[in-house]
Amino acid sequence: MATSPIWTSRPKTRGLVLDLIRSARTITRIELAEATGLTGATISEVVRELMGDGLVVEAGRGAPTGGKPRTLVQLNPLARFSVGVQLERNTCVIVVVDLAGRQVARTSFHGVASMPPERALPLVAAQVEALLATAAVDRDKVLGVGLVSYGPQDRRVGVLLTPQPTDEWLDHPVARRLSESLGMPVLLDNDAAAAAIGEYWMGAVDPRSTYGCIYMATGIGGGVVVAGEVYRGSSSNSVEIGHISIDVNGDECPCGNIGCLENYAGPSALVRQALATPGLAQRLALDPAEADFLSEFARIAAAANAGDPAARSLVEGSARYLGSAAVTMASLFDLDTIVLAGPSFAVAGSIYQAVIQQEVDRRTFARRAHPVRVVPSVNGSDAAAIGGAVLVLQSELTLGHPRQEAPRPVPAS
Amino acid sequence: MATSPIWTSRPKTRGLVLDLIRSARTITRIELAEATGLTGATISEVVRELMGDGLVVEAGRGAPTGGKPRTLVQLNPLARFSVGVQLERNTCVIVVVDLAGRQVARTSFHGVASMPPERALPLVAAQVEALLATAAVDRDKVLGVGLVSYGPQDRRVGVLLTPQPTDEWLDHPVARRLSESLGMPVLLDNDAAAAAIGEYWMGAVDPRSTYGCIYMATGIGGGVVVAGEVYRGSSSNSVEIGHISIDVNGDECPCGNIGCLENYAGPSALVRQALATPGLAQRLALDPAEADFLSEFARIAAAANAGDPAARSLVEGSARYLGSAAVTMASLFDLDTIVLAGPSFAVAGSIYQAVIQQEVDRRTFARRAHPVRVVPSVNGSDAAAIGGAVLVLQSELTLGHPRQEAPRPVPAS
Repeated sequence: MATSPIWTSRPKTRGLVLDLIRSARTITRIELAEATGLTGATISEVVRELMGDGLVVEAGRGAPTGGKPRTLVQLNPLARFSVGVQLERNTCVIVVVDLAGRQVARTSFHGVASMPPERALPLVAAQVEALLATAAVDRDKVLGVGLVSYGPQDRRVGVLLTPQPTDEWLDHPVARRLSESLGMPVLLDNDAAAAAIGEYWMGAVDPRSTYGCIYMATGIGGGVVVAGEVYRGSSSNSVEIGHISIDVNGDECPCGNIGCLENYAGPSALVRQALATPGLAQRLALDPAEADFLSEFARIAAAANAGDPAARSLVEGSARYLGSAAVTMASLFDLDTIVLAGPSFAVAGSIYQAVIQQEVDRRTFARRAHPVRVVPSVNGSDAAAIGGAVLVLQSELTLGHPRQEAPRPVPAS
Repeated sequence: MATSPIWTSRPKTRGLVLDLIRSARTITRIELAEATGLTGATISEVVRELMGDGLVVEAGRGAPTGGKPRTLVQLNPLARFSVGVQLERNTCVIVVVDLAGRQVARTSFHGVASMPPERALPLVAAQVEALLATAAVDRDKVLGVGLVSYGPQDRRVGVLLTPQPTDEWLDHPVARRLSESLGMPVLLDNDAAAAAIGEYWMGAVDPRSTYGCIYMATGIGGGVVVAGEVYRGSSSNSVEIGHISIDVNGDECPCGNIGCLENYAGPSALVRQALATPGLAQRLALDPAEADFLSEFARIAAAANAGDPAARSLVEGSARYLGSAAVTMASLFDLDTIVLAGPSFAVAGSIYQAVIQQEVDRRTFARRAHPVRVVPSVNGSDAAAIGGAVLVLQSELTLGHPRQEAPRPVPAS
């Protein structure tokens, strides 16, 4: 400790070193010193501490580079685990990931979020327990649970500030209740922000990238990641792209805004448009009374893929609306990459990708400075749940501890 | 040096300490240690270094708090200076500020930016020299020039990537040429980003705030500041709010996008709308042939202030369009404050502020989490030029050195 009185108490340094080891897979202490600008003595001290905690192990010797070959270090991926829970109107997805962010177990089920939280959360807790047991993961090695869901949220207190999935969830202390049920820490976060950080940990995006994620499930959300960290803003309620206005003359949305993207481009809007398109509803056997509009949306997307002109025209229209919002996001955040994530891109993702890329190429303000690439998610439909688990790893290990935000007054409405 | 081998070579620490001294006005070493989390030995070393460079001086003793009273330190504001130059289509503003960001001299003149850069930049350089001479500022104490202008830019190379102020400026190496003329470093930056950081240094905004600036001169730009630093994105071409779409069914803008805010809410749009309003053009003696549309815009804004119903209706319309874009900006960046800056808010600022506040209160997605305050600039019309000078201080002193960005390919168009 004598050689580095400042750093050893600073979790940020420890986190930086751990994140470099993680992303490099194997690395020498010399390379760590070069990458961080820290002294060799400090690196040795931090690595010793990480090895003492079992998070890092030595892994043979690197290639000789003139002098004597250096010892490689690497993560011990099975040293810690975390759980990600995505709570959505239709589906709840639970994953367990190891320290390297690799998925070791997964389950999903329907219907839980249509119950009031007093009934739903104990069921979620039971599923988490069952999944950890199935995967034979030692509970002592589980850092906690990342619960990801709708925004806006009070992330600090662990409360949803929206009457979603149902009215009873508004202001319910979801993080505390799930934490009490499970006896482990629970971090609440936005599902789209989680999906965005998941992409980075899965290696889909360059670590120096400034990228955005458009997340489409029943609704449309977004997240932006700058140099490996979620862009938070003043209260972690950033990048709500589904509720930005794309039409100043549009209709009022239940959220209070006018002409919101989600009402033009989201799955329920597409189902509505398809039901109003002569012939299409009959051809695809769409049921106006079907409560699970995602299954109807998937049928439209599949028909578009198969070449049905009316279905294709609707999906391309949705993609152009998303493209308009993607241009706004790219011109405001100056993004170099946009990732399309979430289950509603699963079927017709290639149509969405092509159209959104075209809009971004034509319309983004800084296109003379650099291109903006539109790419599909590497995580598929589980991006948000995996990201929730990754946020726990990042919060506990690489960022030191969950970000403290100043308490804020909550206005009446 | 023996006590802190890591820190003394790290400009970020030195910058952090200097920024704390600046914003606190006077502060003790103990308070600096508490605020930074650094050891007393490190703080003493950094303060000794800053005093050795003449940037910081001792300033008497603080109030006794039980033990012996502690020595206060403060900035030596006259130790360094910087210059800010804002280059706009109609006006060039030059300011000199001291180390505390206080304006010590100012000049402005018309017409220079309508010349090609080969003629304009030597004239700007001569004006900078004259201003420094008038203010009796020692050139050795001038850190450099912050040249702020239109985006998009290649900030790293110091080149405008837009045919503004005139076609000849596109791709011209403005920063290098002005630097050669003056014999001092020149940093190119976006005018709206500069205006945003100026607000923070002038103490208008809480240092922990995440705030946005809407900057309106001939066009409309924007900047976002997170914890005292400009949000940059991947190439420092962020927050181009004048060229986000507010109307998906709108007309194509010369920038390539559709339905851009600037074409609905900007000064030239208002003049166009006023000329098309029966009676108003005659009443205000607007001249459709007047090239300087800002003077015509100022007349409309003055008439709105004075209660002319048609003029007021146009200004309120412009403010509602700006309000729609402000909601987008607040919902994407999760802002707690929006500052209205730039000369085009000078006359009818209170109408703009009231209408934009109303839109933001009604429509911002995270309004349940916290309010978003809309406030006027403290810098008035010189916000961008002062911010340009502040960016030089920040870049040279508190951030260590200008941010290095990775080279990027420049596509053909």
